[in-house]
Amino acid sequence: MANPTAAMLVIGDEILSGRTRDTNTHHLAGELTRHGIRLMEVRVVADDQPAIIAALDALRSRWDHVFTSGGIGPTHDDITADAVAAAFGVAIGVRDDARALLAAHYERSGLEFNTARQRMARIPDGAALIDNPISIAPGFTIGNVHVMAGVPTVFEAMVASVLPTLTGGAPLLSQSLQVNRGEGEVAEPFGALAAEFPDLSMGSYPFIRNGAHGTNLVIRGTDGAQVDAAMQRLVALFGRPQ
Amino acid sequence: MANPTAAMLVIGDEILSGRTRDTNTHHLAGELTRHGIRLMEVRVVADDQPAIIAALDALRSRWDHVFTSGGIGPTHDDITADAVAAAFGVAIGVRDDARALLAAHYERSGLEFNTARQRMARIPDGAALIDNPISIAPGFTIGNVHVMAGVPTVFEAMVASVLPTLTGGAPLLSQSLQVNRGEGEVAEPFGALAAEFPDLSMGSYPFIRNGAHGTNLVIRGTDGAQVDAAMQRLVALFGRPQ
Repeated sequence: MANPTAAMLVIGDEILSGRTRDTNTHHLAGELTRHGIRLMEVRVVADDQPAIIAALDALRSRWDHVFTSGGIGPTHDDITADAVAAAFGVAIGVRDDARALLAAHYERSGLEFNTARQRMARIPDGAALIDNPISIAPGFTIGNVHVMAGVPTVFEAMVASVLPTLTGGAPLLSQSLQVNRGEGEVAEPFGALAAEFPDLSMGSYPFIRNGAHGTNLVIRGTDGAQVDAAMQRLVALFGRPQ
Repeated sequence: MANPTAAMLVIGDEILSGRTRDTNTHHLAGELTRHGIRLMEVRVVADDQPAIIAALDALRSRWDHVFTSGGIGPTHDDITADAVAAAFGVAIGVRDDARALLAAHYERSGLEFNTARQRMARIPDGAALIDNPISIAPGFTIGNVHVMAGVPTVFEAMVASVLPTLTGGAPLLSQSLQVNRGEGEVAEPFGALAAEFPDLSMGSYPFIRNGAHGTNLVIRGTDGAQVDAAMQRLVALFGRPQ
């Protein structure tokens, strides 16, 4: 059976302006690969409702899962929950279970559960909450869309809450070989090897270190025996790493 | 006059699998902001020709500039140049000026200018070369699409080659204030201030440090006097950072 597919939608002006470096995509990519879900596409859009809705609709209709990060806090620029509700054509309002979680948290913390903080209990109708053990304000899943916070520690905790609930596929295996040759020297035999193993994906990633060119050759697939066999051929072609 | 707009298209299975962390988007975002060009959208797609063409067509029809990274090396998985030619409906072949640059480079290096390396001289008809002072193999600009390498040092050098040739807009200015309060405490007055300055963009970015909640408040705009005035109001509301 083919592996389930996914897309990531990062929401936030601060990523596009270069102020903040997005680290959530890289984290999610690694976790999905381990879980046997293929990340097929990533988009980053601004804090702009039409842009969020257009990207959500394109991604959720195409891939099995969509993960979003950002825009679910208490401030005026946090518009993700409303955009998701609009994309699904459902109402959104403060939900009792989310409100109760937050009220208890702020009571324990001795902080006022003010109107802004109550905004974080606004959940689109029909969604299921995603647990947030770090700062309590929940994410949510509606349809095939998983809506999570942008703060990396919270995003990562929410991914850990959601992933075990999703059906994965065969783990995506990879092996790599680092060679002290430029990509241009390995290209022909590597391409020929890739053509012999059509079920595997082979990629080459050049680097420059201390002025010398090298290449990482990566073999990916779900059939461990095939990945092993291809790697043996690769080592025979280019030698073990020195 | 409104600032020119741009999108970034990152091409590469290695980003989607979590093997490699994309750093080119963050670099480009900062450089564009300094140059007065607004980055509006980012997409990451696999090494898959239909996916590359679909993303290119969506982005180049919508934004003033599209910058791509990845997939222009010598190996079988480097399919960006062919995908760009197909998107523009033009032919692609080895071009004399690109071939001459590479031939001279490999002669100086004492390396064979083999068939795989000659692939890097394949340029879509009508494109202009982008200088690559690091590893010589050029990028290219066709229409409003700037096609660049994925290796970060090379990508950054190509951005430095291209950006001075593009018309920028008024620089996008930003000022920020870090406050030792959670987002939920600053949300209401900050939202009210944002409503008073509709020409500015105001964002709040929560963080957790040593277990304590804090928030970075950011004001962005092209009118320096307005940004200054809003920042003075912000400091009056929340105090100078301690």
